Amino acid sequence: MAPTKKGVLERLNAGEVVIGDGGFVFALEKRGYVKAGPWTPEANCTHPDAVRQLHREFLRAGANVMQTFTFYASDDKLVNRGWKVSLTGQQINEAACDLAREVASEGDALVAGGICQTPSYLSCKSETEVKAIFKKQVDVFIKKNVDFLIAEYFEHVEEAEWAVQVLKTTGKAVAACMCIGPEGDLNGVSPGDCAVRLVKAGAQIVGVNCHFDPMTCVEAVRLMKEGVERAGLKAHYMVQPLAYHTPDCNRQGFIDLPEFPFALEPRILTRWDMQKYAREAYKVGIRYIGGCCGFEAYHIRALAEELAPERGFLPKASEKHDLWGKGLEMHTKPWVRARSRKDYWETLRPSSGRPDCATMSHPEGWGVTKGHADLLQHAEATSAQEIQHLLEMQRKAKSSA
Amino acid sequence: MAPTKKGVLERLNAGEVVIGDGGFVFALEKRGYVKAGPWTPEANCTHPDAVRQLHREFLRAGANVMQTFTFYASDDKLVNRGWKVSLTGQQINEAACDLAREVASEGDALVAGGICQTPSYLSCKSETEVKAIFKKQVDVFIKKNVDFLIAEYFEHVEEAEWAVQVLKTTGKAVAACMCIGPEGDLNGVSPGDCAVRLVKAGAQIVGVNCHFDPMTCVEAVRLMKEGVERAGLKAHYMVQPLAYHTPDCNRQGFIDLPEFPFALEPRILTRWDMQKYAREAYKVGIRYIGGCCGFEAYHIRALAEELAPERGFLPKASEKHDLWGKGLEMHTKPWVRARSRKDYWETLRPSSGRPDCATMSHPEGWGVTKGHADLLQHAEATSAQEIQHLLEMQRKAKSSA
Amino acid sequence: MAPTKKGVLERLNAGEVVIGDGGFVFALEKRGYVKAGPWTPEANCTHPDAVRQLHREFLRAGANVMQTFTFYASDDKLVNRGWKVSLTGQQINEAACDLAREVASEGDALVAGGICQTPSYLSCKSETEVKAIFKKQVDVFIKKNVDFLIAEYFEHVEEAEWAVQVLKTTGKAVAACMCIGPEGDLNGVSPGDCAVRLVKAGAQIVGVNCHFDPMTCVEAVRLMKEGVERAGLKAHYMVQPLAYHTPDCNRQGFIDLPEFPFALEPRILTRWDMQKYAREAYKVGIRYIGGCCGFEAYHIRALAEELAPERGFLPKASEKHDLWGKGLEMHTKPWVRARSRKDYWETLRPSSGRPDCATMSHPEGWGVTKGHADLLQHAEATSAQEIQHLLEMQRKAKSSA
Amino acid sequence: MAPTKKGVLERLNAGEVVIGDGGFVFALEKRGYVKAGPWTPEANCTHPDAVRQLHREFLRAGANVMQTFTFYASDDKLVNRGWKVSLTGQQINEAACDLAREVASEGDALVAGGICQTPSYLSCKSETEVKAIFKKQVDVFIKKNVDFLIAEYFEHVEEAEWAVQVLKTTGKAVAACMCIGPEGDLNGVSPGDCAVRLVKAGAQIVGVNCHFDPMTCVEAVRLMKEGVERAGLKAHYMVQPLAYHTPDCNRQGFIDLPEFPFALEPRILTRWDMQKYAREAYKVGIRYIGGCCGFEAYHIRALAEELAPERGFLPKASEKHDLWGKGLEMHTKPWVRARSRKDYWETLRPSSGRPDCATMSHPEGWGVTKGHADLLQHAEATSAQEIQHLLEMQRKAKSSA
Repeated sequence: MAPTKKGVLERLNAGEVVIGDGGFVFALEKRGYVKAGPWTPEANCTHPDAVRQLHREFLRAGANVMQTFTFYASDDKLVNRGWKVSLTGQQINEAACDLAREVASEGDALVAGGICQTPSYLSCKSETEVKAIFKKQVDVFIKKNVDFLIAEYFEHVEEAEWAVQVLKTTGKAVAACMCIGPEGDLNGVSPGDCAVRLVKAGAQIVGVNCHFDPMTCVEAVRLMKEGVERAGLKAHYMVQPLAYHTPDCNRQGFIDLPEFPFALEPRILTRWDMQKYAREAYKVGIRYIGGCCGFEAYHIRALAEELAPERGFLPKASEKHDLWGKGLEMHTKPWVRARSRKDYWETLRPSSGRPDCATMSHPEGWGVTKGHADLLQHAEATSAQEIQHLLEMQRKAKSSA
Repeated sequence: MAPTKKGVLERLNAGEVVIGDGGFVFALEKRGYVKAGPWTPEANCTHPDAVRQLHREFLRAGANVMQTFTFYASDDKLVNRGWKVSLTGQQINEAACDLAREVASEGDALVAGGICQTPSYLSCKSETEVKAIFKKQVDVFIKKNVDFLIAEYFEHVEEAEWAVQVLKTTGKAVAACMCIGPEGDLNGVSPGDCAVRLVKAGAQIVGVNCHFDPMTCVEAVRLMKEGVERAGLKAHYMVQPLAYHTPDCNRQGFIDLPEFPFALEPRILTRWDMQKYAREAYKVGIRYIGGCCGFEAYHIRALAEELAPERGFLPKASEKHDLWGKGLEMHTKPWVRARSRKDYWETLRPSSGRPDCATMSHPEGWGVTKGHADLLQHAEATSAQEIQHLLEMQRKAKSSA
Repeated sequence: MAPTKKGVLERLNAGEVVIGDGGFVFALEKRGYVKAGPWTPEANCTHPDAVRQLHREFLRAGANVMQTFTFYASDDKLVNRGWKVSLTGQQINEAACDLAREVASEGDALVAGGICQTPSYLSCKSETEVKAIFKKQVDVFIKKNVDFLIAEYFEHVEEAEWAVQVLKTTGKAVAACMCIGPEGDLNGVSPGDCAVRLVKAGAQIVGVNCHFDPMTCVEAVRLMKEGVERAGLKAHYMVQPLAYHTPDCNRQGFIDLPEFPFALEPRILTRWDMQKYAREAYKVGIRYIGGCCGFEAYHIRALAEELAPERGFLPKASEKHDLWGKGLEMHTKPWVRARSRKDYWETLRPSSGRPDCATMSHPEGWGVTKGHADLLQHAEATSAQEIQHLLEMQRKAKSSA
Repeated sequence: MAPTKKGVLERLNAGEVVIGDGGFVFALEKRGYVKAGPWTPEANCTHPDAVRQLHREFLRAGANVMQTFTFYASDDKLVNRGWKVSLTGQQINEAACDLAREVASEGDALVAGGICQTPSYLSCKSETEVKAIFKKQVDVFIKKNVDFLIAEYFEHVEEAEWAVQVLKTTGKAVAACMCIGPEGDLNGVSPGDCAVRLVKAGAQIVGVNCHFDPMTCVEAVRLMKEGVERAGLKAHYMVQPLAYHTPDCNRQGFIDLPEFPFALEPRILTRWDMQKYAREAYKVGIRYIGGCCGFEAYHIRALAEELAPERGFLPKASEKHDLWGKGLEMHTKPWVRARSRKDYWETLRPSSGRPDCATMSHPEGWGVTKGHADLLQHAEATSAQEIQHLLEMQRKAKSSA
């Protein structure tokens, strides 16, 4: 049945909104199937039911894309992280494709094969070596005939270009996302310049994912669009942000927040925050709108509900969710029934119940002398070379700031 | 294999810790299978895969109890809420038992059949009528041979007593939980007195669930224990609180917080909060320790991890979670690796990233004149009689306050 | 001129509201004339202009009482604190009386001679010795013919009784204030019992001052009134709270807050908070309403403005303050003019501009094991005996808790 | 006696730090002598004792400048605001000079005559007319022989230039301050460009005062310095910020914060915040360091204490203030004595005790459609022409943004 579906570019060219899916790594970490730290996706093989169920939730919530759960599934990552599995990278990537396809075929969703930044690049491997790493995953995606390809979560535009170049060889549609905010990549390349380089490398869709909250990401993509248009180029735009409020991030994004990754709960966006995000993204001209870490099914549903007027239909999961809290009309208590109104939820500023906590944090790391000293003291640097490289990049980042 | 498992009383009598499971209603609402407002569990029949997966996550996280997903599954609730399903209450309750048993048999967990407060009681039906409602669910539990029974989520101790009396007729072990805090039930009966009445009615395990945050619930159960001991009685104790911080609740609990039920995100407890809760509950002498609304698998895992020294083993899901963030030693960034220490996570006070929000809310409703006027104005009172009853109770609550 | 003024009891018996003055110690510390730590009032002699000016501000703001600036002016305090001044206690107390009288005679205010708790009591001196200390100050007050007497800032009701007994020997009207909250004095004597003992000792006016925020103090005085009435006694009531929000205090009051005494700024009450306090105090039946540490002239003016309808007149300083921000009608910017309305200021919840700070603190000290260890480690205990006494009391406080 | 003192330029040329004084308008409003809204300084004549006392506090705290209390004392302001006084502008300005001189002569302080922005400019009067207004005040300053002149609190650099040009005619040293932040003046002229224009107009000292918190003001002056140096010019730099935290301001400054002017309390800086500010200002190269609205004597003392190592002496008021809380060594309670350490106060993040308040506000006004509608509805526009002018400027500000 897949052949009868419209491709991602067809949809975008026709002006349709494409709803992306949410984040697998964080959701499955909470459910007990992914380990924070290595963050690798061996659950495709070891717990396929859990992965399948999450795909289904996103499909039901309105997602038009089932992204293969292949984050950090490059061979160098699986090996480098010391994660002892008797599984090969190929097995994991193949299982991921099969699960995504199985669920995609249950609804109006496409399968997207996804690759991301590699330890090889960070440890200064050559372009040839890094591209060979990408190639291994892409070979699986072609064998499994995914519908299109996404290169995402790149902190350095150079590596993202290499990824796009590899993906382009397949003839499939290619989307490319940096994990940057409005300040640009870790070498100080602006969002606009990143986008131009990715389009020139062959990406038909460009944008950002992860690392920052929705409004920050939308702003970064707006700057990308501005850059692309200024350069006289054309592209489609996508955004797949965090489901966490991160107004207090530095350029490194939420990784540097003290709460990452085990105490981010108070930052989680509500469904109403998500509706504001979807509207804002749409206004800016972004048409591929999804989520990354922290996004669960109800967040994706909120995107689909906000844009239902434009799209003409609601997602399946809305059968269990009346717009703007209308379902509360059936609540037992009258004063809860009184909350079944749009203006109530739209203007509510939710409390944290944490009067002992400040509302903003101070990110550590890059350029923070004290944090830096701490890290050298505390970190068990498995690879002195890696540290060296990070410091080198830090120096570059500072000199270009 | 179920016959070979130790029963819940055997475990508690032996001084073992019993880890409960988490909340189905809220978790499945987020996943798209339960509707907020009616909150009914028809997903047992319509989406068994989703329910089974959630059971499995809790089992894997360390839960020793698979509670049937039968909250608000009494016939009067299913009908009263106008929830149009072509399913009978019996079908839903049976499916719930089958799913719980299927997953329980995959590990060291017991099946507990659960009933809760009914619309019949709130609309002043007679003891006979209310008990008949309970009886219908209990008949299913007996037919499906659950391991023990839980009467939970009662705001009025009288209804809880009736429930226990019905459950006692089965010969199964009976646990009974009020959804109250240290201030007592909605008629002002103290936790101690509630507990004494429930023990006298036949409950072997007493405690509280839902409505308040963990520390508040632990305090309420401590007061129950004090009451029971003062009365010269004996019981086991359980607690299954919210996974939300609610220091700003009134006696009605989180229902009255303005954030209920669609903007509670900033209040979600971290895994570290959960470890503190588990320790505190244990110290107070509670041995059946689980969760209610908001609890997801990683919260349950945190309970099992905190009490691993006492229990002598870790849950399965800990294969994907090193204690106190140790898994971060494998993180890419050195300064994130520096967070792989207990003292970091134990003392961190997480920020909300929401500087426009206050940290505390003002619950509305009971006894608040303005809120009261609002509710009469806004609420579409489907049943004038119900409102009348609520006001009557409110009057009683106030006069007894 | 004084003879023509009505005495404090005449006023209270007639049902009039008596507005107290604000805090000298904190205001003059900020102005540079009092040293935090010893907190002694030698400025009466060294900088009379500064003291006089502060009296005048309070008079102009509506105060009916000029309390002598004789806090911590007992001889044992002046000596004990090692404060090297070539001034005798008598000189300081006399100068204070003269300044208070000078300004009182410029308006409708009475002079109240004030004494407070002594180091002698804390170091376990005998009743005779402690009373002798009080007597020295009282002799000055009689010589200078103050209008009435106030014993205030007592953490132990026993010492307050002794003070009242000494004051009673003068024949002047006597007011007595504990610096306690609703939990009672440091030995656990309830507000009601404290009040009864003070009335029996001879005080005609009883209440609380300092240590807690206005609403907490009003609640403590309400409990005092309840106790006095339950005992079949009669009294007038007064309250002179902090001008700081202190919802997070323990029984010791703001002394134990980490912000005491040099970082209390974010806690300062606005004039609108003060109006709510004045109204609440009045409702509870308190008729002598003033302030303590943190109160400046505009806070006192707010009390007088709130109660202007009952009293029939505004204070002098209101010539520079239109009610509820009406003066903003003359502001340059139209949108600031738009704030010249009662409902704007009454409902505004002011921000701190400090997103890095939590809203609540954790008091240290009494009963906190860790804080206790710290104090022994850090404190340079000038007097081992004093520490011993404190620990003894702490032990008592805990055993009675 | 004045002749023996070094002039302001002599001091700055010699590399000395000049400590400014604090804010009169806000301090005297709280004390009951200035009316918020008109903010005019008739108290110089009606309550000279109150004004003198405030001067003395600043002198004692370490201020080297007694600025005449002549804010909003131009004739057009006194008249325009409808403030009915039988005093002429000349009388008020003369009294202000006398009071400043009287106190300055009691220590090492200079008298600075101050002028500020005028209603005449805002209502589009001609350069000639506006300059004539300035001239009237300057004539008084010359008659009274002040030591130097300050033009301050200008939102439009053009008016500031006119002011400097008038002041230059006197031959006295001239300082000029805009009330802007890093975004520049209300027409979008950058801090650097403003500074260059003021230096070219003849100011020897340039900087900013009022409207923003210390760190924001220091940043604005840093930008000014950068601009001046880039233009190859030379100047001295000064800064006199608010004593309120205002991270949430828009370009208009604290006027637009909802808390202005009657609920700013939670924003007040502590003395420790002030020490950080003084250090930062010094590092940036600013040598004239003082305060504006909200600054009280203890804030100024904190500046003088922080820079005591550079200056070689402490202010008089430090006889009542040991550095970094050392005075607490004499406190009664041992755990308060334990706070007599620099690291305690330096790192403390003070709580507000206001858990119902958010930490950040949303400024209204300029460019905010809704706020704009409100202002037109609520404001009683005494002058339609003024509104027209404001809207015109608003339009300009937006188009230049």
